[in-house]
Amino acid sequence: MFDGGASMANTFGKMFSITTWGESHGDAVGVVVDGCPPQIEIDIADIQKELARRRPGQSRITTQRRESDEAQILSGVFEGKSLGTPILIGVWNSDQRSKDYEHMRTKFRPSHADYTYQAKYGIRNWKGGGRASARETIGRVAAGAIAKKILAQEFGVEIVGYVKQVSDMVGDVDPETVTMADVESTIVRCPDPDIAERMIERIDEARKAGDTLGGVVEAVARNVPAGLGEPVFDKLEAELGRGVLSLPACKGFEVGSGFGGITMTGSTHNDPFYNEAGRIRTRTNYSGGIQGGISNGESIVIRAAFKPVATIMTPQETVDEDGNPTELSGRGRHDPCVLPRAVPMVEAMMALVLVDHALRQRGQVGDVG
Amino acid sequence: MFDGGASMANTFGKMFSITTWGESHGDAVGVVVDGCPPQIEIDIADIQKELARRRPGQSRITTQRRESDEAQILSGVFEGKSLGTPILIGVWNSDQRSKDYEHMRTKFRPSHADYTYQAKYGIRNWKGGGRASARETIGRVAAGAIAKKILAQEFGVEIVGYVKQVSDMVGDVDPETVTMADVESTIVRCPDPDIAERMIERIDEARKAGDTLGGVVEAVARNVPAGLGEPVFDKLEAELGRGVLSLPACKGFEVGSGFGGITMTGSTHNDPFYNEAGRIRTRTNYSGGIQGGISNGESIVIRAAFKPVATIMTPQETVDEDGNPTELSGRGRHDPCVLPRAVPMVEAMMALVLVDHALRQRGQVGDVG
Amino acid sequence: MFDGGASMANTFGKMFSITTWGESHGDAVGVVVDGCPPQIEIDIADIQKELARRRPGQSRITTQRRESDEAQILSGVFEGKSLGTPILIGVWNSDQRSKDYEHMRTKFRPSHADYTYQAKYGIRNWKGGGRASARETIGRVAAGAIAKKILAQEFGVEIVGYVKQVSDMVGDVDPETVTMADVESTIVRCPDPDIAERMIERIDEARKAGDTLGGVVEAVARNVPAGLGEPVFDKLEAELGRGVLSLPACKGFEVGSGFGGITMTGSTHNDPFYNEAGRIRTRTNYSGGIQGGISNGESIVIRAAFKPVATIMTPQETVDEDGNPTELSGRGRHDPCVLPRAVPMVEAMMALVLVDHALRQRGQVGDVG
Amino acid sequence: MFDGGASMANTFGKMFSITTWGESHGDAVGVVVDGCPPQIEIDIADIQKELARRRPGQSRITTQRRESDEAQILSGVFEGKSLGTPILIGVWNSDQRSKDYEHMRTKFRPSHADYTYQAKYGIRNWKGGGRASARETIGRVAAGAIAKKILAQEFGVEIVGYVKQVSDMVGDVDPETVTMADVESTIVRCPDPDIAERMIERIDEARKAGDTLGGVVEAVARNVPAGLGEPVFDKLEAELGRGVLSLPACKGFEVGSGFGGITMTGSTHNDPFYNEAGRIRTRTNYSGGIQGGISNGESIVIRAAFKPVATIMTPQETVDEDGNPTELSGRGRHDPCVLPRAVPMVEAMMALVLVDHALRQRGQVGDVG
Repeated sequence: MFDGGASMANTFGKMFSITTWGESHGDAVGVVVDGCPPQIEIDIADIQKELARRRPGQSRITTQRRESDEAQILSGVFEGKSLGTPILIGVWNSDQRSKDYEHMRTKFRPSHADYTYQAKYGIRNWKGGGRASARETIGRVAAGAIAKKILAQEFGVEIVGYVKQVSDMVGDVDPETVTMADVESTIVRCPDPDIAERMIERIDEARKAGDTLGGVVEAVARNVPAGLGEPVFDKLEAELGRGVLSLPACKGFEVGSGFGGITMTGSTHNDPFYNEAGRIRTRTNYSGGIQGGISNGESIVIRAAFKPVATIMTPQETVDEDGNPTELSGRGRHDPCVLPRAVPMVEAMMALVLVDHALRQRGQVGDVG
Repeated sequence: MFDGGASMANTFGKMFSITTWGESHGDAVGVVVDGCPPQIEIDIADIQKELARRRPGQSRITTQRRESDEAQILSGVFEGKSLGTPILIGVWNSDQRSKDYEHMRTKFRPSHADYTYQAKYGIRNWKGGGRASARETIGRVAAGAIAKKILAQEFGVEIVGYVKQVSDMVGDVDPETVTMADVESTIVRCPDPDIAERMIERIDEARKAGDTLGGVVEAVARNVPAGLGEPVFDKLEAELGRGVLSLPACKGFEVGSGFGGITMTGSTHNDPFYNEAGRIRTRTNYSGGIQGGISNGESIVIRAAFKPVATIMTPQETVDEDGNPTELSGRGRHDPCVLPRAVPMVEAMMALVLVDHALRQRGQVGDVG
Repeated sequence: MFDGGASMANTFGKMFSITTWGESHGDAVGVVVDGCPPQIEIDIADIQKELARRRPGQSRITTQRRESDEAQILSGVFEGKSLGTPILIGVWNSDQRSKDYEHMRTKFRPSHADYTYQAKYGIRNWKGGGRASARETIGRVAAGAIAKKILAQEFGVEIVGYVKQVSDMVGDVDPETVTMADVESTIVRCPDPDIAERMIERIDEARKAGDTLGGVVEAVARNVPAGLGEPVFDKLEAELGRGVLSLPACKGFEVGSGFGGITMTGSTHNDPFYNEAGRIRTRTNYSGGIQGGISNGESIVIRAAFKPVATIMTPQETVDEDGNPTELSGRGRHDPCVLPRAVPMVEAMMALVLVDHALRQRGQVGDVG
Repeated sequence: MFDGGASMANTFGKMFSITTWGESHGDAVGVVVDGCPPQIEIDIADIQKELARRRPGQSRITTQRRESDEAQILSGVFEGKSLGTPILIGVWNSDQRSKDYEHMRTKFRPSHADYTYQAKYGIRNWKGGGRASARETIGRVAAGAIAKKILAQEFGVEIVGYVKQVSDMVGDVDPETVTMADVESTIVRCPDPDIAERMIERIDEARKAGDTLGGVVEAVARNVPAGLGEPVFDKLEAELGRGVLSLPACKGFEVGSGFGGITMTGSTHNDPFYNEAGRIRTRTNYSGGIQGGISNGESIVIRAAFKPVATIMTPQETVDEDGNPTELSGRGRHDPCVLPRAVPMVEAMMALVLVDHALRQRGQVGDVG
């Protein structure tokens, strides 16, 4: 059967736009970044650092799959500065261990994309999950490093993400003051030391039991200029939501008070304005920094819910490609908890959306903030 | 100051694409629908019916603002069938009562878009909130009526939305069996009769107190073909999230188990496959009908959190355009609870996303489902 | 047969983007303009003036079809200034005289879009040609009026178009000095008075004979800032070409020396740089103001070839919808020569492309020119 | 000065969409192809063959710059078939000889993009012209090879391009019967043997004199299904024009009778329909296979005018980056005539546009042709 392709779904962003490419067991994965302004200092070390935070095998509570994930810039940068032309970043695969997936060739892993891919395309790269695997996020994180650089240098925006919750354990974190150093001080990336310790214990237990845990990543963007986001369909929360919900295993998104705010009343759930030395501020921040779809200058706080992932070690009921009932056991080296590795991914999506809108806004007023 | 415009944000959808237009106190509001296939039966009555569900003044628990909201089709339809050309739908405003907003001319309403619009554009249509007002949703709901028609006739897809929660009152609803008739049987649109009664009481109390309540709309799409959605950035949940989060007052989105699933473990949060008379089914549906970003044929269940809106009757602290502290009291006739009116809006966004993807998928395989 | 629609083709432009709507014998035709910056003075009279230049029945050498073409702005403008939100302009049809087309209901007019539309869609609005008719250009010309306003006020760019050639009669015109007044001084819009006189005679003859003539429109944009256009695919000449070639009856496009330059050698076909009081100029302008796809500050000169249109009064061989040979005679009131009416259309497309790029460039450097 | 980037211009196509990347003296150049349907046989040899036709140093009448241009596929293909995911093709540079351009570092080459790039971006990759150089066309030609494969296998469409004219020498070629073998039988790619011989002589003379010649490439697509192209803005001739006019040195485009048809009258310039064994045909083809912007099933014939390029060996007047008058002599190894190498480029752009529309049309009717 001849099937059409779909060119609309591998690209993200309008003014700052990225296209990811590569299958997990193909030759390489990476990204084309289109829209980086010229004269931005691009250092492969910044990109490498973000990729390391995403990398499997980085600690004992993540999957033991080891990949070297070394990036290379093939275009768009000259003498350490961007040219304003497309930047191609590639990461060559290592340590693929396809045989981990050999036994799954004709079986559908439950709660994975195997069945849906087959239903859609009539072909799949069964080795390791193809484009549905988290290796596709390498391109996003690499591009996110560039986005973060632009945001920091040109707009003074800082983005910090962290694990807010694992299973029923919730960290106490102040988004106004938390730093990247706080987050990176623990392998679980939760900057509440007591909760972090408990999280590590519970994840260890899950790993030994061959089970997995879910949780929430929270991310804050500070010093965001007012005016980002566009009314109607490109509201900032809608764009942030889209970016984050496109991450693997993400099943929920909220901004500001989110689902928690629905039990409040309007008289309480309100952010009054006041004048702080010439700058318009709000006394509270239930809005999460966004009103009417546009940033108001307060910190933007978002949260992403990640389900406990489904590749586990105990046998499961499933069907094969011909519809016959069969059984499947996951093998290989999987994540007992994706949350620590999800932090740089959520930060990357936040950065991509914010830089896209900052560049659009610059086009609108010439000056931002 | 000369400002650039932004043409990227008033359009939604790729293959089935809508552009809304009109300010709340302008001459008219409406939508251009581009991508409706030819030969679809278009009946103004279907559109009018959806607009009525959205309309203010429809019951005592919504705002008492009365608008006639009569729609007119100006292009794209000939002898009752779509031509495949752009369909322009316009709705002429009535009952605007601008003087309700006169006193706000130079003051920023807290938790509204007044300040952010000013920060962004340097001009605003202060009469009634301009494009940030919910009247902009008229175009979406009108276009959603067309989307629903295509989904129903050509794909057999049915969408039902309802109020799931208001404040701390949660309805017990089975998404697999709830019908539009169940929903429309009560003015609060919650198909759990006992909870509905309590909801109406509490909303009445809020209205008298000049306060507002928030809540959750849940929506289900049944009989969705497998294969809708595209991996990486156009994952179905990402697109649904973007559509829903672009609605006014929406602060959170989740699909399937959402935020609730994060306390489960992978061994439990799993949807095993089985073969039901040649059709691949899952025994449970924590995924909410979407796996790896693509629909698997099970019902798609989503939830949207709406904050308690901020226009209330008691005086509030704020600042004016020059940054001077001042006070503001809302006047006019506002919603004590937006949830019943949000139901057709959430359904509309769900329909717009699903029809866009159904048409894309048809382009991929010729046949869908 | 159920057909998909296509939403990608009714919109033009990226940052300043227009969507036209309406069928020639529908209720109205018009355009949604998305991306007009806020605070631009919008006067319905400017739009009306351009529409009058496009209108049939404007002189004895154009079609005698009379249409009043009165435009109305329905959104996006407030107290005479743009809001930065979508601007909807509608023009209500009059004088349709559908019975002119009644006899053609089932027959394909040669060299028209009747057959191709049927092949594509399986339905057509046979009354008057549907979307293929030149009435669809009303929306473009209306939007072009807004584009011209922005270009003039904010960038100092002036666009003048004129009839350069009709059949074998070529006017002698200096693009550097020709004015709109020169052009509008004659009903054939050729600012070479002697040639204009001959053109009018020959068109009169063609009209009486029931035949038609073709020709060339030339248009110049003066005082264009350097830096507009983007390398690779959005080269300025590519975008101008696309805009102009999408006009009805246009079969060729060239810029600068165009097809005429191919007999020159590189040593002659060259525009040397020199410094004129701090401004970089070129001594000649074979490039037509565009080098490497980007404007260099010199006048941009383009030419569009319009074929002699095919609706004529003598009987023609054709087939009907069932493939049976039949005969067809055009009736009605058609154009013996579309060129005078094509001038505002070519100007409009030029303006739409240049304003789109001027706004993009402003996004790149903050300041243009 | 901080400049914004522009992500909108490096991508071409909507359903079948390509993004080219790479600077001429960067590490590599190439393309990401997004939208190739799954299960298409992709063979690197097909791509390599097209690149060879484009390559410099291929014959004595082209530039003597030698580049090996060896392509590599890094993603999107598995066991010889496309996956439906993005296909990354890279070509590693060799033989760059940057020192040819060293002396130009601060001088603007007349009729090149040096000045306009500087005006736009404030930075340029002066080594060899950056993105303005023809090496950027490698990505297009590689992607075009894939587009041609899809067109041939799935739609039966064949594309043949050839040199129609060099300077004042015009070949006599029948687009209905000319074959790729005819074209490739001579290094000048003009399938009229007598004219080809003269062309080669004249190009030799120009090369020795350090001068250059221009000309016209004509291309035909045969067996095109009726129904491709979309009315209003995505008319097939507008899209073909945009694609071709974005090629380096292209200054004009026409389809069918083009500029030549304007001296005809409507009674002669007409393509009557007739029924040929159930298939609707036209007796003549002045339309060039396109009516009302949509293909009618007849051969599509287009022509592109290429100017005589401006890098020549004799000294020229110019200015440097500070505006001071100076002199410049081209060095290096340039093309005396770009036409033979332009043939695969024009074919590639034609293939990219036609496959994009064929895939869109398939989305509209399920079946094409």
